Amino acid sequence: MARSKEFEIHEVLDKAMILFWEQGYEKTSMSDLVEHMGIHRRSLYDTFGDKHSLFLQAMDRYIGKVETRLTQEVKQSETATEAMRAVFRFMIAEQDHSPSGCMIVNSMTELAARDAEINIKSMRSLASTEEMFERIIVWGQQTGEFSSGCEPKEAAEYLQALSIGIRAMGRTTVDTEKLVRIMNMAIRFLTQPS
Amino acid sequence: MARSKEFEIHEVLDKAMILFWEQGYEKTSMSDLVEHMGIHRRSLYDTFGDKHSLFLQAMDRYIGKVETRLTQEVKQSETATEAMRAVFRFMIAEQDHSPSGCMIVNSMTELAARDAEINIKSMRSLASTEEMFERIIVWGQQTGEFSSGCEPKEAAEYLQALSIGIRAMGRTTVDTEKLVRIMNMAIRFLTQPS
Repeated sequence: MARSKEFEIHEVLDKAMILFWEQGYEKTSMSDLVEHMGIHRRSLYDTFGDKHSLFLQAMDRYIGKVETRLTQEVKQSETATEAMRAVFRFMIAEQDHSPSGCMIVNSMTELAARDAEINIKSMRSLASTEEMFERIIVWGQQTGEFSSGCEPKEAAEYLQALSIGIRAMGRTTVDTEKLVRIMNMAIRFLTQPS
Repeated sequence: MARSKEFEIHEVLDKAMILFWEQGYEKTSMSDLVEHMGIHRRSLYDTFGDKHSLFLQAMDRYIGKVETRLTQEVKQSETATEAMRAVFRFMIAEQDHSPSGCMIVNSMTELAARDAEINIKSMRSLASTEEMFERIIVWGQQTGEFSSGCEPKEAAEYLQALSIGIRAMGRTTVDTEKLVRIMNMAIRFLTQPS
């Protein structure tokens, strides 16, 4: 029995996502994509449109996957501290068979300054992560795990910046241990009385 | 009287640096560079070598300028807190007539994962900034401005990640006020008793 068209679309879109995540937008040519996605150039254009349109769809696919995973990590955690650690560990850890770093952070630094659509998509994704940080901080303040001395919205902005830094450093050969130490210091600051 | 050759080299290299900083490595073609630098293609190759070699020289030029400026900012500060603010403000503020964000952070996310030379250059530049953060923290702990509860090396790693996040966010349309709030929270954490 033939697989559904929807399944195939997700499968080939994932291949485009991985390639863009690994090497960025400009480096990736339509010929690379045709070869890597294993479909005909004509089908690629018919299904996804041009390279820019395919990139936007690959970003949506990436954002959807990451948000699903982060929501799961938070749900499975028994304390706010455990949830915060799970989120940071997901951002630090190299995923098996995945490129290093984060496709959103890469796309921001490569394209947001000159591409309004990428800028908007990146900003929306950051806003969603920031809201998640805020919810975890409120949770931790309610249980007494985190100090009530900081305003959750401001602390979430700060954790957002820190997590972007960690994800950018993940593109280099920096030690994972170093990124874990940075996470620990950020969490320690949240628990200090002000 | 003709200007010295050295002066001209710096002047045209600055033009290449600005173009790479603005649009990244892959987007920038040799034809863009020839046009933007205002020299002949042959002179470009003779003086700077190929695009990759020119990019490495542009990065060195950028790193040199930033380090000189940061050293000045720190020297002119009367307190460690003032020095820390000056460093972050330099990273936050849009420089007049300059592209947004930071060329090192852009180069890291675009290239460090697949280009060993860019990775090494980025890591060296980060190490130098981290040492500067560490010196400011030691200074502030000695004067009692910062809490002695954190280990200067670890706190410097953490500030490094935060500052990379701030510089990456600077490529988007995020408010400068938000980046200033993030800086303030980071400095506040350094002053808290642990």
